[in-house]
Amino acid sequence: MSNKVTKIGVLTSGGDAPGMNAAIRAVARTGIYYGLEVYGIMRGYSGMIDDDIFHMSTRSVANIIQRGGTILKTARSKEFMEYEGRKKAYENLKKRGIDGLVVIGGDGSFRGAQKFSAEFDIPCIGLPGTIDKDIAGTDFTIGFDTAVNTAVDAIDKIRDTADAHDRLFVVEVMGRDAGYIALHSGLATGAECVLIPETRTNIEDLISQLTEKEKRRKLVNLVVVAEGDEFGGGAEVGKILKERLPNMDIRVSILGHIQRGGSPTCLDRILSSRMGFHAVESLMTGRHNVMVGIIDDQMHYIPLDTAVKEKQSFTSDWLKIIKILAS
Amino acid sequence: MSNKVTKIGVLTSGGDAPGMNAAIRAVARTGIYYGLEVYGIMRGYSGMIDDDIFHMSTRSVANIIQRGGTILKTARSKEFMEYEGRKKAYENLKKRGIDGLVVIGGDGSFRGAQKFSAEFDIPCIGLPGTIDKDIAGTDFTIGFDTAVNTAVDAIDKIRDTADAHDRLFVVEVMGRDAGYIALHSGLATGAECVLIPETRTNIEDLISQLTEKEKRRKLVNLVVVAEGDEFGGGAEVGKILKERLPNMDIRVSILGHIQRGGSPTCLDRILSSRMGFHAVESLMTGRHNVMVGIIDDQMHYIPLDTAVKEKQSFTSDWLKIIKILAS
Amino acid sequence: MSNKVTKIGVLTSGGDAPGMNAAIRAVARTGIYYGLEVYGIMRGYSGMIDDDIFHMSTRSVANIIQRGGTILKTARSKEFMEYEGRKKAYENLKKRGIDGLVVIGGDGSFRGAQKFSAEFDIPCIGLPGTIDKDIAGTDFTIGFDTAVNTAVDAIDKIRDTADAHDRLFVVEVMGRDAGYIALHSGLATGAECVLIPETRTNIEDLISQLTEKEKRRKLVNLVVVAEGDEFGGGAEVGKILKERLPNMDIRVSILGHIQRGGSPTCLDRILSSRMGFHAVESLMTGRHNVMVGIIDDQMHYIPLDTAVKEKQSFTSDWLKIIKILAS
Amino acid sequence: MSNKVTKIGVLTSGGDAPGMNAAIRAVARTGIYYGLEVYGIMRGYSGMIDDDIFHMSTRSVANIIQRGGTILKTARSKEFMEYEGRKKAYENLKKRGIDGLVVIGGDGSFRGAQKFSAEFDIPCIGLPGTIDKDIAGTDFTIGFDTAVNTAVDAIDKIRDTADAHDRLFVVEVMGRDAGYIALHSGLATGAECVLIPETRTNIEDLISQLTEKEKRRKLVNLVVVAEGDEFGGGAEVGKILKERLPNMDIRVSILGHIQRGGSPTCLDRILSSRMGFHAVESLMTGRHNVMVGIIDDQMHYIPLDTAVKEKQSFTSDWLKIIKILAS
Repeated sequence: MSNKVTKIGVLTSGGDAPGMNAAIRAVARTGIYYGLEVYGIMRGYSGMIDDDIFHMSTRSVANIIQRGGTILKTARSKEFMEYEGRKKAYENLKKRGIDGLVVIGGDGSFRGAQKFSAEFDIPCIGLPGTIDKDIAGTDFTIGFDTAVNTAVDAIDKIRDTADAHDRLFVVEVMGRDAGYIALHSGLATGAECVLIPETRTNIEDLISQLTEKEKRRKLVNLVVVAEGDEFGGGAEVGKILKERLPNMDIRVSILGHIQRGGSPTCLDRILSSRMGFHAVESLMTGRHNVMVGIIDDQMHYIPLDTAVKEKQSFTSDWLKIIKILAS
Repeated sequence: MSNKVTKIGVLTSGGDAPGMNAAIRAVARTGIYYGLEVYGIMRGYSGMIDDDIFHMSTRSVANIIQRGGTILKTARSKEFMEYEGRKKAYENLKKRGIDGLVVIGGDGSFRGAQKFSAEFDIPCIGLPGTIDKDIAGTDFTIGFDTAVNTAVDAIDKIRDTADAHDRLFVVEVMGRDAGYIALHSGLATGAECVLIPETRTNIEDLISQLTEKEKRRKLVNLVVVAEGDEFGGGAEVGKILKERLPNMDIRVSILGHIQRGGSPTCLDRILSSRMGFHAVESLMTGRHNVMVGIIDDQMHYIPLDTAVKEKQSFTSDWLKIIKILAS
Repeated sequence: MSNKVTKIGVLTSGGDAPGMNAAIRAVARTGIYYGLEVYGIMRGYSGMIDDDIFHMSTRSVANIIQRGGTILKTARSKEFMEYEGRKKAYENLKKRGIDGLVVIGGDGSFRGAQKFSAEFDIPCIGLPGTIDKDIAGTDFTIGFDTAVNTAVDAIDKIRDTADAHDRLFVVEVMGRDAGYIALHSGLATGAECVLIPETRTNIEDLISQLTEKEKRRKLVNLVVVAEGDEFGGGAEVGKILKERLPNMDIRVSILGHIQRGGSPTCLDRILSSRMGFHAVESLMTGRHNVMVGIIDDQMHYIPLDTAVKEKQSFTSDWLKIIKILAS
Repeated sequence: MSNKVTKIGVLTSGGDAPGMNAAIRAVARTGIYYGLEVYGIMRGYSGMIDDDIFHMSTRSVANIIQRGGTILKTARSKEFMEYEGRKKAYENLKKRGIDGLVVIGGDGSFRGAQKFSAEFDIPCIGLPGTIDKDIAGTDFTIGFDTAVNTAVDAIDKIRDTADAHDRLFVVEVMGRDAGYIALHSGLATGAECVLIPETRTNIEDLISQLTEKEKRRKLVNLVVVAEGDEFGGGAEVGKILKERLPNMDIRVSILGHIQRGGSPTCLDRILSSRMGFHAVESLMTGRHNVMVGIIDDQMHYIPLDTAVKEKQSFTSDWLKIIKILAS
């Protein structure tokens, strides 16, 4: 691979996450500042295959740093999983002379980039864009901080009504494989208990905990459940609790897709801006096929093929603190 | 009934609504200002029956104007539907000398108040507290403006992700009998269509409308459904659309209980404050067993027994405007 | 004037207000729906004079209903106050065949429209777009509800810190000629007192009120001042109070321009959408040179030359209620 | 000092910061969980001197995790700077048997605690509570994340109106000695330039940068200034720019005290909860007279007398990134 990238493409792929626009802006502005030509590729790898690619100016990204969603749209492309699709995609880049790629997405998107780069000599840089925060090699992912704050706002509202009625709410937040959103939003809202995929929950313990508090009339409002917990999410947990605690007034609320949208928080905008800047710098300095991560507030670069979905270890302290603080 | 009320009680009953605290504050402060004693009654009529009643000072309501929920909590009391329950409740008022009551709640709560007042010579004033806005005799109810703004915020977030993925979202908002929240939030978010209990929706029309737009690649993101619409809410509508439009990427989101909570909007705080003030004034001037309503920004008083749940007429203009503006 | 408008222009003029984009969207979509051609005119009358005019499609206004500011930008044009300027503007409309105009702005903008229409036979419709709410012939103006909610949010934050420190804050909100924002935000945040241009404030009364409360240790956090009150705004009022109440810890906060921005509330979006729709309908049905207003939730049309800045009467009740509820 | 603390006091001191309530809750709940008695001390060291101290139960801190301000109120105490004051304070602790103290505040508060502990054998733990983030020994302080997000929200609103009018806004944010809020909020809102106390700004460079962009009609909306920058804050910078760039429409906005209030973000609630938990644990395990800090997401403990106000080093990258991304 040649170090001299001159024209770069940027795309967003997989599930959208707040902050993607800030990252796109940073890639475009940095690239243009350093004399590169920058192309926006629509709908992830699909736009690369369908040749839905446009030339970006600094104005293409004006006034988007604060917007949720992604101006480049996003998609999951089955065609790109086949060699034929990737070849077509390559030809569309080649005819424009695009010789570097920034892919903002999750681990699935990175695997695609990895394969593509190996086959067609196009250096790729990955930026971790997913609200789930479960990617190896980075402390934060683009969108996570916004998603948890959205969850916290929503749960605060639910607690108003829970408290007014002395109800227990089982709130399901996003997280099919990872419990970060549940853990953070649960600790931040004073949940009684948080159920996550990473640990097994002893439901009998939870029930006796709730029963005991019911007896001493300690009001319990809130159990937070990640959608991927072992019981199968909020509806299932609600069902179990209703059966076992028939005297309690129990409701279930699934927060759902609101967690993906909204204006990114300060942290997500800064993360995205820094990562976008360093993605272009990486392409220019020949640091290829890496994911830009942040560890201890410093940029780190790990090979794309190691940037897989990972159950980050978190200290079990957190679950203990949640329990104690709800006491 | 004697006009000379000297001690009044205030309670919140039925579903909670943002602004109830502002109303409680207004009742307490106004009563005390005019030399009355004011008592807070917990959990609606239940607290009246269980004698869960406390003396309020101006400080009891400090710093609550901006809070969601209700510091007096709320409940639906089966016991109060029986004469025995009401008699017990009366005795608890009587032993304190409470000779006037302000009931903040919906039409069900008003029916209870009406009956109670007829039996036990305690004048009652109703304040319309419900996010659904479907009470006769008032243009606004306490909590409606906050609830629609919460729905609008949530739908804005959903649209970010809908737009990023070219998805159609069917969003269910609250409203079992009334389509106000759906109608307002749908118009305010540029929904393609709004399905409400008050009108029949021709689903074939909606499907051909969506098909036609799909053809000309006009992106459609949003259908808003009241939970009480004829098809049975968002999940059902989503199911139908998925069957009939298999090529579209359709998701369902149920906003749920977040719509009940949160800090009240300016409008709801003002409405609650004015109504609370006029409730006490009504008790003092002998205007008894009425609901305080607002019509054309003026206070109106209608007999409690006419303050029933009502399908307010709204101009069919709105549905037409929604359709045209989504074109 | 001919009733048959076929091509219409839309512009925003004067101070910007949240909801202007929703109104632009409604004008464009309604016009196109009814077969008109719609042109966007940039920077108010300036763009008309400079020929900064573009053809709008339904997509020009996609995804803007929720945005603050105005995509057409706004300005105050001195040139348009001269006949020469207006003539130039007219010629730019004429060469495109634009035969109808929707002007979203305040009373100054309406006077310009009125004059222009009289001189050049172009029917104009005005939509009241100003956060100040001080225009005759309408209960609400586009942007007011958003501005007061922004003020309320900000004052809630200030109260957190005021309360933590037992401080008195003098908060200045917008309103050079009208006290609506002050009155609404003051009532909604439990202010001790609200100072507005429409009434004279007896400063001695305020000082003894504050002194009396200080004595009985009733915490007072908040005095809200409209920028156009008789003392000259928040800084001046703060200065007086600091001199006269040297033992109190008094701070001044000027909310400033944040009150103009932000995503419009549900009410403002609906108001703007309805008004925009009816503006086009008015042009089409030959109802010319009127402002579209809303009175008692119904559309009203008043001649543009009567849509002047007006001190709407508000019941003095409000100031009394504010005082009692802060007691 | 004995390790066996049995009764602890908690207070907030200095400027208030969002998250202080979450920290108080964590201290109280953790203490009670481990069998300690917990006392709330009002208005910082003042309440210790005036004996304004109350016994806390787990309910004392119910429903406060999401509240701005501090339920214990805060103050700066001159009396505590004298030995006599501290002696009085000590006696009030002693008569209750309070043998450990958690002080939530800034470096000034820590110096007081240090001195107090040295004189009277009461172990003290400090929690860094300040929106300014300028305390040695921790990556984050309680309140910083909320304050920057409040600033970002406000600046987003200002940009709406700036953009509508093609205006340049000079926005002043808090930060007398530290530029963190300015730097973070400026990067997150796409500011052209950020002026902070830590660096000298070449005003000629800024002016030619603005002039150059004006020429090529690149719209510049935003300069962010920390109140403690070398020119003396936003008003001064605005004055200079207005003089030197008379053709630009320049406005100044001072965000002020709104930055201190509001519901804490998820990050601040978690930070506060974890720190509060570890403060009590520190007292119990004999880790005395330290500040609990967070470094690389791990708790760290540094001697209180080293937890001074510190100009943390930040990479000069940030200013470069801000400049490039605004290009």
